[in-house]
Amino acid sequence: MKFEILARDGAARAGRLTTAHGVVDTPVFMPVGTHGTVKGLAPDDLHAAGAQLVLANTYHLFLKPGHELVRELGGLHRFMSWEGAILTDSGGFQVFSLSKLRRITDAGAEFRSPVDGSTHFLSPEIAVEVQRALGADIIHPLDECLAYPATRETTERSLELTLRWAARSKAAHVERAAAGQAMFGIVQGGTDAALRTRAAHATVELGFDGYAIGGLAVGEPKPLMYELTALVASLLPASQPRYLMGVGKPEDLVESVARGVDMFDCVLPTRNARNGQAFTADGPVTLKQARYARDGAPLDADCPCYACRGFSRAYLRHLFMSGELLAYRLLTLHNVTFFLGLMRAMRAAIVEGVFGAFQARFVSRYAVSVADDPGGPRTP
Amino acid sequence: MKFEILARDGAARAGRLTTAHGVVDTPVFMPVGTHGTVKGLAPDDLHAAGAQLVLANTYHLFLKPGHELVRELGGLHRFMSWEGAILTDSGGFQVFSLSKLRRITDAGAEFRSPVDGSTHFLSPEIAVEVQRALGADIIHPLDECLAYPATRETTERSLELTLRWAARSKAAHVERAAAGQAMFGIVQGGTDAALRTRAAHATVELGFDGYAIGGLAVGEPKPLMYELTALVASLLPASQPRYLMGVGKPEDLVESVARGVDMFDCVLPTRNARNGQAFTADGPVTLKQARYARDGAPLDADCPCYACRGFSRAYLRHLFMSGELLAYRLLTLHNVTFFLGLMRAMRAAIVEGVFGAFQARFVSRYAVSVADDPGGPRTP
Repeated sequence: MKFEILARDGAARAGRLTTAHGVVDTPVFMPVGTHGTVKGLAPDDLHAAGAQLVLANTYHLFLKPGHELVRELGGLHRFMSWEGAILTDSGGFQVFSLSKLRRITDAGAEFRSPVDGSTHFLSPEIAVEVQRALGADIIHPLDECLAYPATRETTERSLELTLRWAARSKAAHVERAAAGQAMFGIVQGGTDAALRTRAAHATVELGFDGYAIGGLAVGEPKPLMYELTALVASLLPASQPRYLMGVGKPEDLVESVARGVDMFDCVLPTRNARNGQAFTADGPVTLKQARYARDGAPLDADCPCYACRGFSRAYLRHLFMSGELLAYRLLTLHNVTFFLGLMRAMRAAIVEGVFGAFQARFVSRYAVSVADDPGGPRTP
Repeated sequence: MKFEILARDGAARAGRLTTAHGVVDTPVFMPVGTHGTVKGLAPDDLHAAGAQLVLANTYHLFLKPGHELVRELGGLHRFMSWEGAILTDSGGFQVFSLSKLRRITDAGAEFRSPVDGSTHFLSPEIAVEVQRALGADIIHPLDECLAYPATRETTERSLELTLRWAARSKAAHVERAAAGQAMFGIVQGGTDAALRTRAAHATVELGFDGYAIGGLAVGEPKPLMYELTALVASLLPASQPRYLMGVGKPEDLVESVARGVDMFDCVLPTRNARNGQAFTADGPVTLKQARYARDGAPLDADCPCYACRGFSRAYLRHLFMSGELLAYRLLTLHNVTFFLGLMRAMRAAIVEGVFGAFQARFVSRYAVSVADDPGGPRTP
């Protein structure tokens, strides 16, 4: 994996990540493909939306259909018929947020599957092996992701476990690295600046191909999230990609790019689409509102997506209110197109050296019009 | 509307229906777009599958979002962004199968909406007006569709009502015919050959652009359905299109084309897709069966659809078992492609004068492999 920075504007960077499955322009937003599919979209939709990199969840694929089955069928790219790049998280976040009766020891995490109640075990070594079987382009070490808030003592103990697991993950990865597979480190440390600093230094010392900032967007105040993002980004190697996990809303993407983040993932565009919410440059459109019932305009007149080229808000509302499957595909396609278009616009602004002006314009048009908060904290 | 017969082979006919929204090659299968969308598919999918004509349900659109709203937004073609032809049924079948507390008089049908319990009234004149507002290329008169079995007395009384309504519908249509809008008559008469004969003669006497055979595929034995279809088809004008409503399974399509039917609609390919069943030349594939869990082959190696070009049975099964939206789109796309491909193959066989051989080959490959019946009687 190669990462080149093509332009900087303040802390913001425009770059190019070259993976075993194509080039990824950064800053990049990764649509979330939990079960080996970005909910509601086919690979052709993802291509049309401009996606170059999608996220898949190790935890979910480990439980269903199982990494061995995916390996047997040629790996995740072939399984889901996606020729672009894939990043997998380590499963840590889901073990801590979704599983019942989990038991954490230094050895790893034992947990019950929410699918069928069966007991499973993920160690740092197993998580690497699972991700190797899936064949993702970018993988992650098993980490512990704390709920917010947590005491300093808990956070410190958790961070040390994450660091020990990171060292073992790196060793397992180096020992049997799959061709073309890169590994990012994950910086934890809760909401304590000193612990975040220690986490960043210690993770960088282990040496990874890029760095993820984990454990944010879990309910902490927004200013604190921005502050910690800026702090950690400033402590990471300038020449390597930085990934803020589970973020976020359009305004969060802009604010975080301004603080030096290159990569993002979030269920927001896909999940909110299924709830009838479309993102537009003028803020979110909530289709269940009666005011769209006779609205012949597209969701976003400037949007190039299939949903905006062919269909009115009135029709999309009708589909959504009727529970029609097409509503979910079209709204998801639109939202993913919107998020990827926002990233493209940010890249262009950085290259042109006008990111500050872009940010101000975005806030005045989009963020101001966000009367209702379009989404809650990160969900697994 | 123009209908030309290009070739005959026995009672089977290959033709070309020219509508205000393009040419339709017959025999044709119409995917069902109940709420102004063929469940799971977008117009681009329908084009890719080769659809030229889709059915929309007057009853459903009358209740939601309402025909006036559709008219205001430019008609149904524009509303659903479908440039091909549209046929609407009259709502009769649904009034009798879906509505509660219906009250039928000579004036029309009063019924309660299953959506919100509100009371509605459809008369022959209102049904024509609703279909005019929708702007379908082919419309139908309000009819009474009896449940099977019915006594001869009930059937006779019902048939006379349908005939009186047909005359009023025709008058309403002629009085204010929308440009390019054709009206088919519906032949009812239950399972009584004499009543079917009377219905066919009386309906033809009223004079329509084509003729639908209604009230079959409602639970009667298959041989009886085939027999009545052959009888009614033989009594209809040779130069006009014949449409067998709500039929059917692949084997029914072949048998009915052999008896002189030109047009069909059925929810089978779309509904069964949502239940995880794919139609193939070797019979249906039920994806929930464990034997497909590691099956790397496509649903149908000969199928040109996107689902078969990109994805394995194992992946489609994984999507279906995970409740992923993409399963419904891909399976529906495949099934509709299969049904339309079957019609195309029948047209070619008729043109080449080898329909008998085609029919025998189809039965020996498809019908013999249908171990489990892939669907029940027609559902609304």
